[in-house]
Amino acid sequence: MLTTAKVALVLMALLVPVAKFLGVLEPEGEPQYTSDGQMKFPEHYREWVYLSSGFDMSYSSEGSGMADHHMFDNTFVNPEAYKVFVATGHWPDKTVIVLESRMAKGRGSINQKGNYQDEQIMGVSIHVRDDARFPGKWAFFGFDGGQTGKMIPTTATCYSCHQDHGAVDSTFVQFYPTLLPIAKAKETLAARYLKEIMAPEEKEPL
Amino acid sequence: MLTTAKVALVLMALLVPVAKFLGVLEPEGEPQYTSDGQMKFPEHYREWVYLSSGFDMSYSSEGSGMADHHMFDNTFVNPEAYKVFVATGHWPDKTVIVLESRMAKGRGSINQKGNYQDEQIMGVSIHVRDDARFPGKWAFFGFDGGQTGKMIPTTATCYSCHQDHGAVDSTFVQFYPTLLPIAKAKETLAARYLKEIMAPEEKEPL
Repeated sequence: MLTTAKVALVLMALLVPVAKFLGVLEPEGEPQYTSDGQMKFPEHYREWVYLSSGFDMSYSSEGSGMADHHMFDNTFVNPEAYKVFVATGHWPDKTVIVLESRMAKGRGSINQKGNYQDEQIMGVSIHVRDDARFPGKWAFFGFDGGQTGKMIPTTATCYSCHQDHGAVDSTFVQFYPTLLPIAKAKETLAARYLKEIMAPEEKEPL
Repeated sequence: MLTTAKVALVLMALLVPVAKFLGVLEPEGEPQYTSDGQMKFPEHYREWVYLSSGFDMSYSSEGSGMADHHMFDNTFVNPEAYKVFVATGHWPDKTVIVLESRMAKGRGSINQKGNYQDEQIMGVSIHVRDDARFPGKWAFFGFDGGQTGKMIPTTATCYSCHQDHGAVDSTFVQFYPTLLPIAKAKETLAARYLKEIMAPEEKEPL
């Protein structure tokens, strides 16, 4: 007999593939590449899950030439990876983290003080985990407004800095306010990061 | 004969209601209220579509007591309303715009300059369109960390300010960098807003 439970089971099994086929589900965030090893720009990243924003952040105390302007950085992750992080405190294979830099505007419309974000994007960087593709699992790609972006060589400082200072899986979860409590609760913070925040190195005075 | 096209049509018709029933689709953003007229807090708003962030924004040049700290404001909208805005340049009924205020942190971890966002939420305000419920279509609700929020009286300045200065449908689309170009292209910018940016009123010196 065709019970309601059986109907529900069949529909559940069919649902996701059929939905994908019909394009009803959200665009997915799996990384795509060109035949020459560039990464395709994930055009729907603004509909992914937002992680956080920074304002004029810099990992160097020597300044970054921002005397004449201000910048925002917005970070997004593909929804599939976000769900796994919320459940486990770790990033899965095929995680795509997008860092978008935008110019800041000051006074404008009714805004009298502080800053809001301009339409102008200054650049996009992507940190992607793809275990079968990259020997170190993760890679960085840079985009300058084009449809594809080149991989940043693994000798670049972004790799060693993320490896040395990333709170979880070489990513800067310490700057993502809704994910940091999850990593704490699930005890997935990197040992190196825990050591760093317990006994911070001598820092220069401000 | 049961053609592929017919099967596809039947599946398409069934898909969304079945998916909702089975809980496969994302949590929806339709506003929910208590019997005493409070709004229920939309607990999944951080998975909605991100619109933008501001840093220490203020609509008053007289200062807002922020001498000793900095603040970020992050704005999100329910995905259903976002899709309609992208398609039409207007917000539909049941639009829910969430403004989340977070404390800013400065130096921390490897960050030497600028600011990032703290785990601590300072407050959440919601701007909601619900045509059958509010005589002016839109209403504001304030949340202080509870599961429900009270409606802000329509005499509050947020109503008149949004009405007078909102770029689209009494909302501050002028501060949402991915939506402003859509409103321009679809010519949905409010006449009052266009007049204001063409001939801005005399402003006090900075």
